Amino acid sequence: MIKAPYNNLQTSITTVNLKTHFTQYRERVDGALDQWLPREQIHPSHLHQAMRYSTFNGGKRVRPLLVYLTGEALAIPVSQLDGPACAIELIHSYSLVHDDLPAMDDDDLRRGKPTCHKAYDEATAILVGDGLQALAFSILAQDKKMLENAQARLNMCALLAQASGSRGMVGGQAIDLASVGKQLTLAELQDMHIHKTGALIRASVMLAAYSKPDIEPEQEKNLDHYAKCIGLNFQIKDDILDIEGNTETLGKPQGSDVEADKPTYPAIVGMNEAKQMMMDLHQEAINSLAPFGDKAEPLRDLAKYIVNREY
Amino acid sequence: MIKAPYNNLQTSITTVNLKTHFTQYRERVDGALDQWLPREQIHPSHLHQAMRYSTFNGGKRVRPLLVYLTGEALAIPVSQLDGPACAIELIHSYSLVHDDLPAMDDDDLRRGKPTCHKAYDEATAILVGDGLQALAFSILAQDKKMLENAQARLNMCALLAQASGSRGMVGGQAIDLASVGKQLTLAELQDMHIHKTGALIRASVMLAAYSKPDIEPEQEKNLDHYAKCIGLNFQIKDDILDIEGNTETLGKPQGSDVEADKPTYPAIVGMNEAKQMMMDLHQEAINSLAPFGDKAEPLRDLAKYIVNREY
Repeated sequence: MIKAPYNNLQTSITTVNLKTHFTQYRERVDGALDQWLPREQIHPSHLHQAMRYSTFNGGKRVRPLLVYLTGEALAIPVSQLDGPACAIELIHSYSLVHDDLPAMDDDDLRRGKPTCHKAYDEATAILVGDGLQALAFSILAQDKKMLENAQARLNMCALLAQASGSRGMVGGQAIDLASVGKQLTLAELQDMHIHKTGALIRASVMLAAYSKPDIEPEQEKNLDHYAKCIGLNFQIKDDILDIEGNTETLGKPQGSDVEADKPTYPAIVGMNEAKQMMMDLHQEAINSLAPFGDKAEPLRDLAKYIVNREY
Repeated sequence: MIKAPYNNLQTSITTVNLKTHFTQYRERVDGALDQWLPREQIHPSHLHQAMRYSTFNGGKRVRPLLVYLTGEALAIPVSQLDGPACAIELIHSYSLVHDDLPAMDDDDLRRGKPTCHKAYDEATAILVGDGLQALAFSILAQDKKMLENAQARLNMCALLAQASGSRGMVGGQAIDLASVGKQLTLAELQDMHIHKTGALIRASVMLAAYSKPDIEPEQEKNLDHYAKCIGLNFQIKDDILDIEGNTETLGKPQGSDVEADKPTYPAIVGMNEAKQMMMDLHQEAINSLAPFGDKAEPLRDLAKYIVNREY
């Protein structure tokens, strides 16, 4: 049986405020990304056009939201968070461009629009990804609005590099590709997602935490645990949506993971157990936020959004 | 007529010492790279194996040499230079892996060995490049042997990100791909190479300069000019070798640029003029080093090596 929050949150009053709150941050990060991405006119303009096309693609901006909302929980000035929010989103954007390539997941559509290599070409898509990754580090290293503590910012660069590298996100994609058509255990599936999506979601939260160099170790530990729980939930929900979601709302064919013979939570543990796991993790995430009081309400909302979203 | 140094340096006594000197640094950076690259056994091992395959591929390590030799000219402790030397070489390595992909230059061989996507597969090669780029920034951000000045290290991260990004190396590859089969002017050819190889060669020298935060602006300017001259010369020499070089020594088919209809210096200005440009730039590079006295002798040697090399 599925516990209450999963079924009744969709209609709560919070959802309306939440939507406005999230929309403001989405607009904020889009504005900041627009400032950092080279203008389309800048040489080589074909590449810069494609970099913008791939970044402004209707993404949900979940990772920037996590940066901003963690910042709220820690009372960090919002202007210090634009840099980390942009950096993490650019890493995410580059990974989608590369993952969509014919040699990888071979996807023609991303959120209902042609993927980068379809709108442009494969070579451009490879370079777009490479350029977006470099830009992410460029921002962390030189954004003048971020906190002045240079050592903290170096730590952010290290965190982002590790979370996105071969022992994080990039490693997760390698594990994913090697898993297609294989029967995975639950542990192997978790391992894949902890790398592929978990590492970057955790980094989103921790980049904000690193923006407060005097953070208490206990606070950092709690936020870290929150991030790990919602990171896994993000993927469980994705797997559930692939089966129960609506093709039009999803922006990709419903059932495409099943079709591609990709290992999913429902396939390994069954749909009911997958939903139960998600709710248990959700409760753990909520529990981790207890010491932050009201300031963490938006982070709670985001955790709920992740398990309630329809795409 | 070609000036003297180009023709008679190959047999000078310096060359012998130079070779030992360079070999020592090559071994040093290879040792450091071996420490930073995840072991082959580390999960996902297939990816880490491929990352090592692509990094230890018989490369000339010109960029790390530039870091170390600039460090000599500025009397920087060598242990502070290992991090920048590794970072710049990893960026270079990743760019080769991506440039060799079928959608880009479609090369099966690199220095006589199968390219990464041939030895492994395309998806792995894309991920190898992505992982190597992240590792480069990871090193600059966390190497404990580098100088302690965190702001200087952030500046290095920013420098490397800009030099390797869409307005540097990655942009250069985009310009290169767009130029195949086109008639370029000399200015357009220079612009391509300033992006594609020049930016990273300049960054190699400047990373070492940034390791000395109290460097005099005049010194920095001179080193920068040296780097720009040898960066262009590196490419002019490549183009000359493509025509005059030996397939076996080159590790790739002689004449492959001409075959691929790539714009080259000899094609645009003629072989004699290309050689003359190279010697003029060489002289400019040497002149820039005058204020550094004997300590810059190895940098002079490297400039000579670039115009004299046979592969």
